[in-house]
Amino acid sequence: MGREQELARLIAYIKAEYPAHISLLDAKRGDIGSTAAYYAREAYERYAADAVTVNPYLGKESIDPYLPYTEDGKGIVVLCRTSNPDSDWIQQRAEDATPVYQQVASRVAQWNTRGQFMLVTGATYPEELGVVRALVGDMPLLVPGIGAQGGDLAAVLRHGLDRHQTGLLISSSRGIIYAGAGEEFAAASGAAAKDLRDQINVLRNDNKKTSYLSEK
Amino acid sequence: MGREQELARLIAYIKAEYPAHISLLDAKRGDIGSTAAYYAREAYERYAADAVTVNPYLGKESIDPYLPYTEDGKGIVVLCRTSNPDSDWIQQRAEDATPVYQQVASRVAQWNTRGQFMLVTGATYPEELGVVRALVGDMPLLVPGIGAQGGDLAAVLRHGLDRHQTGLLISSSRGIIYAGAGEEFAAASGAAAKDLRDQINVLRNDNKKTSYLSEK
Repeated sequence: MGREQELARLIAYIKAEYPAHISLLDAKRGDIGSTAAYYAREAYERYAADAVTVNPYLGKESIDPYLPYTEDGKGIVVLCRTSNPDSDWIQQRAEDATPVYQQVASRVAQWNTRGQFMLVTGATYPEELGVVRALVGDMPLLVPGIGAQGGDLAAVLRHGLDRHQTGLLISSSRGIIYAGAGEEFAAASGAAAKDLRDQINVLRNDNKKTSYLSEK
Repeated sequence: MGREQELARLIAYIKAEYPAHISLLDAKRGDIGSTAAYYAREAYERYAADAVTVNPYLGKESIDPYLPYTEDGKGIVVLCRTSNPDSDWIQQRAEDATPVYQQVASRVAQWNTRGQFMLVTGATYPEELGVVRALVGDMPLLVPGIGAQGGDLAAVLRHGLDRHQTGLLISSSRGIIYAGAGEEFAAASGAAAKDLRDQINVLRNDNKKTSYLSEK
């Protein structure tokens, strides 16, 4: 079985067994026109993913081909402020009146007429995650960089939660996938995922209390 | 035969029949770490392409995994100023001291220690192509946007040629691929490619004369 078939089978399995979960294809597509249209078809039809990550560097033409699928409830996740260190010089430049990542956030907020957009905002830049939150209201944010990359979970929640104390999809990949090895790998990955979930919920509750106190 | 096998066979055919031609995979990859390393391996090993296009939005970490292959003569083509209209707001913003596409050009010129980089600079923005040329010296530029997209060939050559009256890879895709149909398609595509080549060479000669006159 080829890798493409494995991926299609995995997504089909998740949909069958866990119908409330969304499948997000982190393909980071960044093309326009007919190529982008094929990428959209591949993500939403071939793999039946619920959402796909796209790169904004080519502008709106690289987003447009995905829009027709949002009528069927599909989502688009735009790279905004990525978690890796050398993204600074392009996404966040000191000389700028408005850094590129903020322009991306504002643009995507304008495009978000159907509530089908998310933004990638890395856990390694929690203050900037707060800036994005202020620009996009309750749009959900996809947050990589927790776990292997060392992002600060408490800071992410403090800056990133929306006014309903939610709106963050916090992604730990290597920290969960490689939590164990051999026979134990599934149990170890399950435990790592639950542990991260519990940490998030403890911090959310602390955050609620702080919000409550600061409102008094 | 799957599409992947078709592509691998096409590139192998070009290498066997036309060994002096380079095969450039326009995959517009934009990921980091192990994913980018697999993309590099796919482009250079699986498909045996000579060069591959990459998106700079994630910074140097999205380029690094391609660099080891440049020791074997492989090339990297970085998206800089793309030819589609809505790339303006991110690549070229009026408020900027230094637009993003110029930052990309300057960065890539620094990375170009082995002469293995090119930049994508669209034919639809010939003046900006000239700005990029001034920033990167004799680095070859890949220029889409001639043909179906309506770029001005004479302006491209005037602004984009290097000091040796060369250094431009002018790409017309739909204008050549769809020049004819049915039985005639190969002959029509061949004629369209030769016609474009001849137009380019006439304009290069005009340009040489102008340069010669202006030096007097």
